[in-house]
Amino acid sequence: MAKNDVKLLGIWASPFVMRARISLNIKSVNYEFLEETVGSKSELLLQSNPVHKKVPVLIHGDKPICESLVIVQYIDEVWTSGPSILSADHYDRAIQRFWAAYLDDKWFPAMRRIRGAQGEERQELVDQVVEGLALLEEAFGKYSKGKAFFGGDQIGFIDIAFGSLLGWLRVTEKVGEVKLLDEAKTPGLVKWADCFCADAAVKSVMPETEKLIEFSKFLMAKMKGAPSPKN
Amino acid sequence: MAKNDVKLLGIWASPFVMRARISLNIKSVNYEFLEETVGSKSELLLQSNPVHKKVPVLIHGDKPICESLVIVQYIDEVWTSGPSILSADHYDRAIQRFWAAYLDDKWFPAMRRIRGAQGEERQELVDQVVEGLALLEEAFGKYSKGKAFFGGDQIGFIDIAFGSLLGWLRVTEKVGEVKLLDEAKTPGLVKWADCFCADAAVKSVMPETEKLIEFSKFLMAKMKGAPSPKN
Repeated sequence: MAKNDVKLLGIWASPFVMRARISLNIKSVNYEFLEETVGSKSELLLQSNPVHKKVPVLIHGDKPICESLVIVQYIDEVWTSGPSILSADHYDRAIQRFWAAYLDDKWFPAMRRIRGAQGEERQELVDQVVEGLALLEEAFGKYSKGKAFFGGDQIGFIDIAFGSLLGWLRVTEKVGEVKLLDEAKTPGLVKWADCFCADAAVKSVMPETEKLIEFSKFLMAKMKGAPSPKN
Repeated sequence: MAKNDVKLLGIWASPFVMRARISLNIKSVNYEFLEETVGSKSELLLQSNPVHKKVPVLIHGDKPICESLVIVQYIDEVWTSGPSILSADHYDRAIQRFWAAYLDDKWFPAMRRIRGAQGEERQELVDQVVEGLALLEEAFGKYSKGKAFFGGDQIGFIDIAFGSLLGWLRVTEKVGEVKLLDEAKTPGLVKWADCFCADAAVKSVMPETEKLIEFSKFLMAKMKGAPSPKN
């Protein structure tokens, strides 16, 4: 394998894989996308990520890098000729890492549980997610300074961490019949989400909501041996 | 507040607060430690970390930084004249971030649940923690290259992320009557733990196991109004 070969092990529907793809697109890095089969892990995946056995894995030359936010930071640090993903300012970088951790540790885990929850538990999760969106709306107002993205004129670290979750947010809204991202309560985020999905680095890798819904049904039914939908 | 004033909001028994303290010690940064009272959050804490309302919070000048691993990276990036905490090499940095995330997302959450668990659940948690230690032993062999620390001759990012959890590991072993860090299975880590705790940047902030046990009993009993043990 050539020293500068870049491969990405992933699944098209994974928001975490999307983070790596968007980052590679921002930096104009050519890479080979190796689609894993759901329910069957390739030998290369097991060798490259023996701890978690999960996608995404970026393989740069012969070196595997795992965990989506670690991958995004690696891409940002290695391919410095492209636009920066994290700010140069130390404090801004800390703020960006803070919100990315919040999304992964608190917001997304609550959001992904909504569809499987019932009654009071479900209402608590919806409230948590909506409160989280209010916090993110406030952060957006503070950091975007009237521009399109959390990162200003260009997509940055918070944009990637949050924007990659938009597809599954829409699935949750549609299948779970619940309004989460609301024009009246979070107008900044609604506009931001449109700009994010329309961006050149994003639109080729952001799955359509209908396809994600189909994939989600397949995941639920996979015990029964239904065929995997392709993107 | 002067621009370069450094304050740390913390609780002496918190492993996450310890990460910030060790990092500040490594960089020889003078700071004021503001001890929070358990069960009562100060106004400054609520203002500085409105999202999580948790310690540690580093306040640099008038800027609050939250989340321990974010704080450690911030300290490393701002005070560059001291020894580096993360490596300069991009791939090594990715590896360091990977293991720190593993410790916080998988290993520590399993370890902290051991004492409250029973029967089969407890055995599963113990097995998870022991398997994790085997992975960390392997990583130590690979990255320390025969030197004292994951970071080589000096304490680095993995050392701080993992070493800060040693106090509570010992509490779990002692109170939970379970052997986790085992000379026979993880000889490298046993030696590393001794070196880590003896390091000049660590020994003044690493609590004695007996004091942590006392603190842990206080936490269990705090509904009854027991007084807080001080370090």
